[in-house]
Amino acid sequence: MASKAGQKSISAYGEARSTVEGKPLDAETIRKMNAWFRASMYLCLGMLYLRDNPLLKEPLKLEHLKARLLGHWGSDAGQSFTWMHMNRLIKKYDLKVLFVSGPGHGAPGIISQSYLEGVYSEVYPDKGEDTEGMTKFFKQFSFPGGIGSHATPETPGSIHEGGELGYSLSHAFGSVFDNPNLITLTMVGDGESETGPLATSWHSTKFLNPINDGAVLPVLHLNGYKINNPTVLARISHDELTSLLVGYGWKPYFVEGSDLDSMHQAMAVTLEQCVTEIKEHQKKARETKTPFRPRWPMIVLRTPKGWSAPREVDGHLLEGFWRAHQIPITDVRTNPAHLKVLETWMKAYKPEELFDKNGTLIQELKELAPTGKSRISANPVGNGGLLRRPLDIPDFREYGFKDIDPGLTIKGGMANMARFLRDVVAQNMNNFRLFGPDETESNKLSEVYKAGKKVWMGDYFEEDKDGGNLSPDGRVMEILSEHTCEGWLEGYILSGRHGLLNSYEPFIHVIDSMVNQHCKWIEKCLEVEWRARVSSLNILITATVWRQDHNGFTHQDPGFLDVVANKSPEVVRIYLPPDGNTLLSVMDHCLRSVNYVNVIVADKQEHIQFLDMDAAVAHCTKGLGIWDWASNDQGTEPDIVMASCGDVSTHEALAATALLREYLPQLKVRFVNVVDLFRLISAIHHPHGMSDKRWKSIFTIDKPIIFNFHSYPWLIHRLTYKRPGQHSLHVRGYKEKGNIDTPFELAMRNDTDRYSLAMAAIDLVQSLGNSAAGVREKLYNEQLAAKSEAFDNGVDPEHIRNWKWPFPKE
Amino acid sequence: MASKAGQKSISAYGEARSTVEGKPLDAETIRKMNAWFRASMYLCLGMLYLRDNPLLKEPLKLEHLKARLLGHWGSDAGQSFTWMHMNRLIKKYDLKVLFVSGPGHGAPGIISQSYLEGVYSEVYPDKGEDTEGMTKFFKQFSFPGGIGSHATPETPGSIHEGGELGYSLSHAFGSVFDNPNLITLTMVGDGESETGPLATSWHSTKFLNPINDGAVLPVLHLNGYKINNPTVLARISHDELTSLLVGYGWKPYFVEGSDLDSMHQAMAVTLEQCVTEIKEHQKKARETKTPFRPRWPMIVLRTPKGWSAPREVDGHLLEGFWRAHQIPITDVRTNPAHLKVLETWMKAYKPEELFDKNGTLIQELKELAPTGKSRISANPVGNGGLLRRPLDIPDFREYGFKDIDPGLTIKGGMANMARFLRDVVAQNMNNFRLFGPDETESNKLSEVYKAGKKVWMGDYFEEDKDGGNLSPDGRVMEILSEHTCEGWLEGYILSGRHGLLNSYEPFIHVIDSMVNQHCKWIEKCLEVEWRARVSSLNILITATVWRQDHNGFTHQDPGFLDVVANKSPEVVRIYLPPDGNTLLSVMDHCLRSVNYVNVIVADKQEHIQFLDMDAAVAHCTKGLGIWDWASNDQGTEPDIVMASCGDVSTHEALAATALLREYLPQLKVRFVNVVDLFRLISAIHHPHGMSDKRWKSIFTIDKPIIFNFHSYPWLIHRLTYKRPGQHSLHVRGYKEKGNIDTPFELAMRNDTDRYSLAMAAIDLVQSLGNSAAGVREKLYNEQLAAKSEAFDNGVDPEHIRNWKWPFPKE
Repeated sequence: MASKAGQKSISAYGEARSTVEGKPLDAETIRKMNAWFRASMYLCLGMLYLRDNPLLKEPLKLEHLKARLLGHWGSDAGQSFTWMHMNRLIKKYDLKVLFVSGPGHGAPGIISQSYLEGVYSEVYPDKGEDTEGMTKFFKQFSFPGGIGSHATPETPGSIHEGGELGYSLSHAFGSVFDNPNLITLTMVGDGESETGPLATSWHSTKFLNPINDGAVLPVLHLNGYKINNPTVLARISHDELTSLLVGYGWKPYFVEGSDLDSMHQAMAVTLEQCVTEIKEHQKKARETKTPFRPRWPMIVLRTPKGWSAPREVDGHLLEGFWRAHQIPITDVRTNPAHLKVLETWMKAYKPEELFDKNGTLIQELKELAPTGKSRISANPVGNGGLLRRPLDIPDFREYGFKDIDPGLTIKGGMANMARFLRDVVAQNMNNFRLFGPDETESNKLSEVYKAGKKVWMGDYFEEDKDGGNLSPDGRVMEILSEHTCEGWLEGYILSGRHGLLNSYEPFIHVIDSMVNQHCKWIEKCLEVEWRARVSSLNILITATVWRQDHNGFTHQDPGFLDVVANKSPEVVRIYLPPDGNTLLSVMDHCLRSVNYVNVIVADKQEHIQFLDMDAAVAHCTKGLGIWDWASNDQGTEPDIVMASCGDVSTHEALAATALLREYLPQLKVRFVNVVDLFRLISAIHHPHGMSDKRWKSIFTIDKPIIFNFHSYPWLIHRLTYKRPGQHSLHVRGYKEKGNIDTPFELAMRNDTDRYSLAMAAIDLVQSLGNSAAGVREKLYNEQLAAKSEAFDNGVDPEHIRNWKWPFPKE
Repeated sequence: MASKAGQKSISAYGEARSTVEGKPLDAETIRKMNAWFRASMYLCLGMLYLRDNPLLKEPLKLEHLKARLLGHWGSDAGQSFTWMHMNRLIKKYDLKVLFVSGPGHGAPGIISQSYLEGVYSEVYPDKGEDTEGMTKFFKQFSFPGGIGSHATPETPGSIHEGGELGYSLSHAFGSVFDNPNLITLTMVGDGESETGPLATSWHSTKFLNPINDGAVLPVLHLNGYKINNPTVLARISHDELTSLLVGYGWKPYFVEGSDLDSMHQAMAVTLEQCVTEIKEHQKKARETKTPFRPRWPMIVLRTPKGWSAPREVDGHLLEGFWRAHQIPITDVRTNPAHLKVLETWMKAYKPEELFDKNGTLIQELKELAPTGKSRISANPVGNGGLLRRPLDIPDFREYGFKDIDPGLTIKGGMANMARFLRDVVAQNMNNFRLFGPDETESNKLSEVYKAGKKVWMGDYFEEDKDGGNLSPDGRVMEILSEHTCEGWLEGYILSGRHGLLNSYEPFIHVIDSMVNQHCKWIEKCLEVEWRARVSSLNILITATVWRQDHNGFTHQDPGFLDVVANKSPEVVRIYLPPDGNTLLSVMDHCLRSVNYVNVIVADKQEHIQFLDMDAAVAHCTKGLGIWDWASNDQGTEPDIVMASCGDVSTHEALAATALLREYLPQLKVRFVNVVDLFRLISAIHHPHGMSDKRWKSIFTIDKPIIFNFHSYPWLIHRLTYKRPGQHSLHVRGYKEKGNIDTPFELAMRNDTDRYSLAMAAIDLVQSLGNSAAGVREKLYNEQLAAKSEAFDNGVDPEHIRNWKWPFPKE
């Protein structure tokens, strides 16, 4: 059987070729496996085509077909084939296995497995194991009110939809970290393999500890084609592909062919070889208590795209070509000959031999599957919320800055919060990880290394002793790939644990699409009754737009908030704590929450502190509020409202308020700060939104509001659409103006500096008339002088850098 | 010299180890090269630290230092070293070389080269080759009003900033496509190598034709460390790394060490080996006219991070560790001992031997560099706008649909536009390429294959004859990586050519950050006088949110427009042509434009056509306008304005208008369509914006406006902020509600279907009072019936699917 693997053309498919030799299966087992495979393929076609006559007991007619034919056939066979072979080993070795379907649009393949092993009918009793159930099972697929054509949240055992490609391996690794007994069998599409995120995620083995973590067993499916193109990895030499995978740190085993009997033998012996090696590596590391990085086994499975379809239809290739990608024969509704081809094809799977007269899978096939939670699609890891243990969180108040003088105390809120995170790590050693793309220390979070270092399974050098903070047993995950960090975190959360991603603000856009997809996943989970809620995805964004003195324009983009704000209000939360104690309060809140994407924006530098812990908790609980100590409108209507959201923005808005109060003491200024961005929306549109009544009590009905915002100003306009007095709202924020600027210069370019804000206030308060013209001029001159000094010295003037609130506390 | 490469620890640096043996340099050359290297390193430190006393003729004092020390040192040496060695070969073989700096934050390294070869002073005469010029040259770096610490647009010869990491190789490949005589020497950072986009871009060789295209010569710089972590590729075995690069299709040569004399020999012999191989492969392919994919040569350069810095400062590692990443000694302003260390270090480069008493590089060193345009930083490809030839574009009017019956004719506008694109390809064979992630055929653009097939340098199979459309000489670039497609296109454009990316709407978010960075690049180019304008980056988005019947929720995200709208008005343009002729007009306009990012959103399915070619051109020229044929308010103020933007949205808004006109003939309805999204903004904020006067003439002052928008509705609110009658504007759009829905169901979920729009109109026109209650109920019942039918059949009712405008043309 086993000849040299690596033959090229589809026409050379046939007898199996594989790296490992052996024929572990007896004829009877092969007969049953063939039957199971036929059952699976039959179900796949049923899902794609049928709404009635599920077992084809009557001749196939138009009325049995769905009106619109939608779905993917191309990768179904390879995925089914892989899944069913794992079943044999689950039973033999009592394995715990999760299946991640990289090419998620091969959902029929895996949904058919779930149905065959009985899980689907247990989860959805109306899709029972009988003719009626099968009819509903077929009809619901890619049908209104039904399920999608990917491994959507409705799919039992799925934590990975595969709608957007590229994240299968990083999700899989996330699922096995701190899950030492789990093997995540991961089908990697050869199309998906061309994406950047997938291409780098093969390196995840450098961050996997064989003692504490489980194993990922990738099956790279050389299906050969994408939608309309060959795949790169299927069109390079066998040696080149081997070399690539070895270079990535894996030990690839090849299984190639299309002849079923020999393919069963090849897959059985190869998969068992891989499982055995995994167990050996784990045993060695665990018994010797010496973590190491083995060359983990993996499989390259080369089968024809659309395997088991007709090779040709009307002289054009189907099996083994890209035409098999979606609906394999598209015109069955209008072409009677093709309807006949479909019927003949489906009948060739011999459904009458596989399902009894009630439409129930026959007993001898049922016995091929494991039972209970050992069934892949019943693995509770696939519904990770079930396994979720709440974090053991220390009292964040204990970490707060004491004796805050509002506007005077200068401290580093991020570095301080790191002490809290350190203890969260320490108290949840197998249940929480911190993720980040090589920025954790730069982001002032290095205190966490005291509880858990950076996981590193690459080589160690002498130099690492000089502050390397590397360890195989670390709790911090750092690779310079936002995609991989995010994917790991998603996998870790979806399998029932907790985590936090920290990242530079400008480059969080790298994972816009991943966060979008995660939002969509957890929103849909809300509609799936049996899905238990998972921990929130927490994203801490720092190194923000306002402090990019030398990195300049490329590092200035606070627009991730706009992307997040487009997602469902059920799912997204955005916080911009103005100082250290509010940051602690927000972080505690986010770590306790479930099923959200929480975005926290906070600068990492030292800043003026505003609120003591009690005030911080009260402020965060309200989400926004008037800062009385900074306002002088007590008991009256103000002349103007100065509002802010974001730490640097708050600092400048407060400095502007001080200038106004000093130079124009008769002016009544109210100062408002917003922590929870979605408080600004109407309560009709977001659970955190507030009523117009509350809005008026804070922002007034008609007084000018100058709102200094951290991000692009238009987001505030959008959130406050139709608010009372909306026309009095003047938002300042980042307007895409920047270069190599000092913080003050950058603020000035965007009209967010204290002088610009104060001058704008003077222009807007009509009651001041011309009386304030002199003050305005004074402000203008001070602004120019400050700019000039910054420009000459390359650093902001002392009175700008170390500005403090000039008024005594009440 | 050449011992086994692959030694691990920094402490094992020293004598060079390399794959190729040989000592091509004589002692005199080595002496000069060492001097050049010292000059380069001296200039780097000068940029990081000094604002005065550039040649250290006086003892170094605090007042000579910049007030804030910013910039990167870590990768400067390796980049300088590589650049200078290429100079030798440029002179020897008369090469044309472009340098792409992956780790762009090593800008001092390459800026120093540009200064040493005289280009910098030619481009910026105030930074002349003398003491005064050097002083300014130092001070401007990372200084307000100066230049950034990456290879920003101000950098002569740069087309790649390297602010956001990951795109060096794809940019480099873009630059050499159709540039047969160019070698793009590409420094790939080992940190950057961990990003997804970089990890997959190594595969670009499968799309490079050695006859028509030039060559990319990557130098993977194993610098060893990122900001605070080791790099993955520097911590795997030599064999594994070799295997990885061979697997990617390359032939890696190693050069490793820190001893300068032997490193010069090793780099000289290795680089020459690579250049020779490149030329041999090209010669073979060109002489035989047989394109093939050689294993292209590349270099792995392992040198210590911060090479030539002190190994230790105060007992902590500097050279060869991550502490050398940014400013190598940070506290020189406050620690006199460290100031002395810096001075000693700088003086060890012996500036007095390198620059004469005027501060000019001595003649014998000047002679090491090539001259004129052969100097890397003077290569005109680095200022690609200079080389740009306008496209030869056929008259798009010739491709238009003739005899359009507004609202009746049904055609496929995308497939039709493909005929225009086909001829653009045909008439610009070396000057235009079409890019896309395996979706060109799915997007109905396959007509272009008649002019140029898909470039494919992977293996060919028999099957490809059955409609594979692959060719080494293709003009269409398809890999399943939006990152790589975008990177190639950016490189192609920035080096002076033209192109178009086509992509599914939902997954265009994958490249949010890349498009952001490109916007920032071209905006900054506007401020750099010597930069000639380049072709616009054209992005055609299709497979849009409203037609995702089976892909469902994951494929519904029109929010890319929000990301783009945050960028500078000088740079971004967004078009949503409502039909086929407007699509042609918009495409023609975009292909002719320069220095923009043009985003075009259009569905790929067949749709009702609205405008004949003259009307389409007029409509696109105005950017928005009233469609008189659909309105019945001629000569009067309307009761309501129905507005739309986007093809599907226009279709439903028009159907709603028809329902209103049929059921409530007394109602005066005005129909407005928007093609050019930025027409909605005030002229103050965007060059395409319009005045309030014009706004009023179209949208009225106070009449209700129902605006049916393609994307998230909030974008319209943001764009129309403070418009007259803003409170009368009711925007409908995608509200993140979707599943496996028919188009009608999906529209209903988001209140954008014809019935919802018509009912909203009735609710808003107060003059109707209760008289329209019956009509409203009728609409509601028709809506329910349509939904019910769609739900039962899995397909929308015939009268919804094939709806046509019921009124005769004027």
